[in-house]
Amino acid sequence: MSDESVTLMSAAAVTTADYSVSHGVHYLLDLFGCSSPILDDEIALLALAVEAAEKAGATVLAEHHHRFDPHGVSAVCILAESHLSIHTWPETGTATIDLYTCGTTADPEIACDVIEARLLPRHSERSRIERGRPTRPIT
Amino acid sequence: MSDESVTLMSAAAVTTADYSVSHGVHYLLDLFGCSSPILDDEIALLALAVEAAEKAGATVLAEHHHRFDPHGVSAVCILAESHLSIHTWPETGTATIDLYTCGTTADPEIACDVIEARLLPRHSERSRIERGRPTRPIT
Repeated sequence: MSDESVTLMSAAAVTTADYSVSHGVHYLLDLFGCSSPILDDEIALLALAVEAAEKAGATVLAEHHHRFDPHGVSAVCILAESHLSIHTWPETGTATIDLYTCGTTADPEIACDVIEARLLPRHSERSRIERGRPTRPIT
Repeated sequence: MSDESVTLMSAAAVTTADYSVSHGVHYLLDLFGCSSPILDDEIALLALAVEAAEKAGATVLAEHHHRFDPHGVSAVCILAESHLSIHTWPETGTATIDLYTCGTTADPEIACDVIEARLLPRHSERSRIERGRPTRPIT
């Protein structure tokens, strides 16, 4: 921990924090009845995550994938803007995606569109949640 | 892509999918006015993420942290149950956490409690979202 961080975290700094400032948007995308053959392919899903992030204007800092036994995949990208994850259940044709972006550089709707177009769901549900902005008064 | 995955993703398999099956729960935790000195310390925050995941009964598969210039940290754990991320803004005393767990092994409330207790927020907001279960009829 640097001296600078101690200064930043002083009581005065916290007390005067502007709570109306946005701390990014979090997209949750649930895809059902996906007919894409890549749903159980961790290499292809990670490549899709990277492609979606880059087409959205985000910067990929790190990548990780994990394959579950007997099937199912997690693919996660750490972004300069936050993170993108894809989790799949080939046995039910389901994929859940979360994409958290900060700043104005990336357009998360584009990333969601890219993933949805590739995984070919029968049904999709997308929600946008603003993060780090209080919904109740801070007393 | 294996032959098995092609079989799993056949049209028949998708058509008969049970959409009432849960695909995990996603906790979003926003912390405001955090007075912890570790908010700008990527090593301590990643250690906290690992500790929280393990105390919740989750299995950490991979870890990653990233430090932003001039301040701010992302700490992400890939879990056997899904993922946990902590993003911080020391300049506003804000931390946003998302914790996605599948199965019944891990108790995400415990992880949220551990993180909240350590980051010392003045105000916190926690939401629980069930993933991969349609909220509208699938036609």
